[in-house]
Amino acid sequence: MSGKARVTYWAGRGRCEPLRMILAAGGVLMEHNVLTAIDGAQALRALRESGKLAYDQVPLVEIDGLNLVQGTPTAQYIAQRCALWPSTPEAQYRAGAVFAAAQDARAPLVSYPFHGDLNRLLADLSSPRGLWGRYAVKWEAMLAEHKFLAGDAPSLADVAVYEVLDFAHAACAASGSATCLPSAPSPAFDQSLAAFPRLRALRAAVHELGRVKQWVEVERPEVFVSEWAAYRRSVDMTLSR
Amino acid sequence: MSGKARVTYWAGRGRCEPLRMILAAGGVLMEHNVLTAIDGAQALRALRESGKLAYDQVPLVEIDGLNLVQGTPTAQYIAQRCALWPSTPEAQYRAGAVFAAAQDARAPLVSYPFHGDLNRLLADLSSPRGLWGRYAVKWEAMLAEHKFLAGDAPSLADVAVYEVLDFAHAACAASGSATCLPSAPSPAFDQSLAAFPRLRALRAAVHELGRVKQWVEVERPEVFVSEWAAYRRSVDMTLSR
Repeated sequence: MSGKARVTYWAGRGRCEPLRMILAAGGVLMEHNVLTAIDGAQALRALRESGKLAYDQVPLVEIDGLNLVQGTPTAQYIAQRCALWPSTPEAQYRAGAVFAAAQDARAPLVSYPFHGDLNRLLADLSSPRGLWGRYAVKWEAMLAEHKFLAGDAPSLADVAVYEVLDFAHAACAASGSATCLPSAPSPAFDQSLAAFPRLRALRAAVHELGRVKQWVEVERPEVFVSEWAAYRRSVDMTLSR
Repeated sequence: MSGKARVTYWAGRGRCEPLRMILAAGGVLMEHNVLTAIDGAQALRALRESGKLAYDQVPLVEIDGLNLVQGTPTAQYIAQRCALWPSTPEAQYRAGAVFAAAQDARAPLVSYPFHGDLNRLLADLSSPRGLWGRYAVKWEAMLAEHKFLAGDAPSLADVAVYEVLDFAHAACAASGSATCLPSAPSPAFDQSLAAFPRLRALRAAVHELGRVKQWVEVERPEVFVSEWAAYRRSVDMTLSR
């Protein structure tokens, strides 16, 4: 539960936020190595030459002297370290399957800053294969069996689902405006979530885990850029050079 | 290492073959519930109604009384059961990261039957982000450090890499022809692999693990359809109804 992690990524959610959220839930302090539109390309080149990026890609999480890349095994390593990984193979499978499903559910959110079409995003989330149409239904049913998604204790599964809901909330609350860190509530999001009372309770419980509240409410607004377009530019400028 | 697994998928590689290959490497006997162009849609509907598909998707692996879906956690569950999962968190991360990279590397192979453009596939595999341009280079370097990709014993990482090479070999050897189970060797594939001698030795070693040779040489040709187009039709006919 102690130690510190150095996280390298752009200043937005993307493929990194599930990892940051698990670190936060585990109480791990983070140092942020932010790739920007101005010097991201140079920083990424230097990282590749350093050999820290096993497949030349970010996010990179440096912890315990290791250079962790690839989202799923990184999430699992952190979860094991922070007591957010179940102990039996069956419960581990259950946690891993929810984590994988959460990554599938958030794919339309990851691509949203790059197309900017809010109606397309909302349609994706509500479709029979989307967050509200498929995944929330399944998770709500699982929570009728256990207090948390992989059993009686919180795991990376719960944190991953919290993170998808947080991401969806941000997009809904922004409601097509420039900001990706909206402060106002979103009636549309609240209405979607109202159909899933156990999921709503899970969201409230994860918010109180470890340093989650601190990260989401205090630190993240200091680290993230405030507009979807600025995030997109930082990614585009880094990868196009 | 014992017991039997029931595998539900279409009669081709797709997203299922890494799981079948890990079962084979672990010596687990398989029973194949094949989704076909004729009755796949009905069989999938019945499975969804049975509650066995946690997210309504296949592949489904039934083993130990569990209904495993989602590729990565299923692969890991089987690997743990078959002594193909390392024991330390660091080696587990290493195995998981190679497995994830192998899934990235095989994405162009998964989509190949649906577009049928061999030149596009070969360009994808050779690009700086593809199998030969990125992944094989990294894996070859890892094999200079250890005999197997996650350490001194075989793991799901080695089996996953073997499977990508097997899939690439099939596409190259077919060389644009109708068959997806070519029997002739492929000079083009052999030439690509020749640049990676340690990977070539790993491929030969995994071929001898458990029931891999039996699955690849004897059983698989009895289970799979013999043409890319027939595989594509079975998928399309199942999902469009």
